[in-house]
Amino acid sequence: MPSESEIISNLRRLARTSDAVPVGIGDDAAVISGIAGKDLLACCDLMVEGVHFCIDWASPRLIGRKALAVNLSDIAAMGGVPRFALISAALPHKCSEEFVSELFAGIFQLADDTGVLIVGGDTSSSRDSIFIDVSVIGECDTGKAITRGGAKPGNIIYVTGSLGGSALGLMLVEQGLRLNVSSSRDDDPRQQAVLRHLSPEPQLKFGCTIGEAGLATAMIDISDGLSTDLWHILDESNCGAAIQASAIPIANCVRRVAPELPGIDPLKLALNSGEEYELLLTASPENHERIFAITRKLDVSITAIGEIVAGKQLQLNLDNEVIPIEPSGYQHLI
Amino acid sequence: MPSESEIISNLRRLARTSDAVPVGIGDDAAVISGIAGKDLLACCDLMVEGVHFCIDWASPRLIGRKALAVNLSDIAAMGGVPRFALISAALPHKCSEEFVSELFAGIFQLADDTGVLIVGGDTSSSRDSIFIDVSVIGECDTGKAITRGGAKPGNIIYVTGSLGGSALGLMLVEQGLRLNVSSSRDDDPRQQAVLRHLSPEPQLKFGCTIGEAGLATAMIDISDGLSTDLWHILDESNCGAAIQASAIPIANCVRRVAPELPGIDPLKLALNSGEEYELLLTASPENHERIFAITRKLDVSITAIGEIVAGKQLQLNLDNEVIPIEPSGYQHLI
Repeated sequence: MPSESEIISNLRRLARTSDAVPVGIGDDAAVISGIAGKDLLACCDLMVEGVHFCIDWASPRLIGRKALAVNLSDIAAMGGVPRFALISAALPHKCSEEFVSELFAGIFQLADDTGVLIVGGDTSSSRDSIFIDVSVIGECDTGKAITRGGAKPGNIIYVTGSLGGSALGLMLVEQGLRLNVSSSRDDDPRQQAVLRHLSPEPQLKFGCTIGEAGLATAMIDISDGLSTDLWHILDESNCGAAIQASAIPIANCVRRVAPELPGIDPLKLALNSGEEYELLLTASPENHERIFAITRKLDVSITAIGEIVAGKQLQLNLDNEVIPIEPSGYQHLI
Repeated sequence: MPSESEIISNLRRLARTSDAVPVGIGDDAAVISGIAGKDLLACCDLMVEGVHFCIDWASPRLIGRKALAVNLSDIAAMGGVPRFALISAALPHKCSEEFVSELFAGIFQLADDTGVLIVGGDTSSSRDSIFIDVSVIGECDTGKAITRGGAKPGNIIYVTGSLGGSALGLMLVEQGLRLNVSSSRDDDPRQQAVLRHLSPEPQLKFGCTIGEAGLATAMIDISDGLSTDLWHILDESNCGAAIQASAIPIANCVRRVAPELPGIDPLKLALNSGEEYELLLTASPENHERIFAITRKLDVSITAIGEIVAGKQLQLNLDNEVIPIEPSGYQHLI
């Protein structure tokens, strides 16, 4: 493993400079200027080897990329723009110089692609597991952050993209499937599912556009699963929801692979699949057209899946049945 | 170990509310308002079990306290005021509910004592070791952050407090000494040294007062040891230093205990002792009186230990000898 000072001097070389960061990596703290007139958004997410990932599942580049991606998704879920990141990594001696270099390359590549500046961090050795903690500072117009707490009865519930792929990908990775790097993955639904799990795409443009336009009453990113994350909104907004099973956007890769996997129910997967990093939001029906205009402009797919109702409950309408879903997730079809 | 949702709801109860944080713990990201007209300072420091601490060395409360303290010290070293913190913790199953609760209580207690608001965080399980990563956001007047890069030949070099105690404390803890909680530690230099290592006091008031007054040309906190941290300033400022061995403030506990410990040299300990969290700064001689006036007002001790010179070198004047000190630290007396 390279020394801490070697890692830091590498990071200083990689980090882009900006007038907004008069002092970046290498001092006691970074200095960030010119945030006047905005609210700050701050979040952190950690990834622990053996809990969130295994090193033989993916390249270190993808592991690093995901450590940042999940944080960017949190800022998107507030309707904001991610601006700056701090990276802490504890690395055991088994990590080669190339591994460490690729891990950070994955973080920096996504940062560059999304306009995020890496402004600092900390590294340490570790006795055993790899531990990566990323903190992101973002911004939004003053008072415009979209919390989980603003949903109101009558609001429509929307979800971006499609669901279930990440859980399927995790299952396949755990069964030993690996990303095929040599040929196209486009036609292979199993590869698509694995890619979805290992390399999530946070909905950055949609999140901040909805935030700037002030169109959502509540928003969250789907990290724990649709049903659990919807419950987070219901808890904070003190209301309930009725969702239509037939409307839930199940990922194509799930629809294609499920028939070959006994015991896999696509709907259940879509309801419970965590680490999707799609956005789940609620909005007044009067904003419906404006929201769809934004999705067309940004080429993002979005689906209305139900409605906010009064009373602390989450109901799934499946065929002609009404099924209550507990905060622990949707278990009915097990 | 308590579940993540139990930990989070405990933290939400503990966290103080403030107009500056319209959304704190429990959403995708915290919302921080009213930073207009300031520069932001951002830093993170991680503490890893088996690398930075062992759980049988100290109470979980002190472990948590130190995880925050070392970050506050970084903000002090920029001449700023710490305002907000994010806490990430990966905790193995061996951690009892009481352990986790005390760990966070230590963080929150120091946060309350220093006016820092805990605005968010993340928790995870861990297969083996405890990892705690704290990120702190602070502020300073625009353009007034004190970096490591501003020292100039002719500047006087100062250090707050006294040095060597933390390294002595670490040595004693590794030998099996523990903090005596039942009786006074005031008269026991070994207890003082252990306390110094386990419960450092960041120089918050001195740091931000010097920062506001614009009196220092460079500043760093002593986390790696006086000689190494002075080298950090010299590297960034592209200059050298001559320091007087006789002027270096050796901690009383070190002076008292050293004669009983064969092979321990107090000067070497003071030069190399890390995790002291005193401030090392450089300033123009014309500010000497103003700096001392501040130390008297704040009841902080400070010592002039040498001078910045031209040419990339660090010289220690010891009796009538001039000893060069390499960036790797002061090894001469081994």
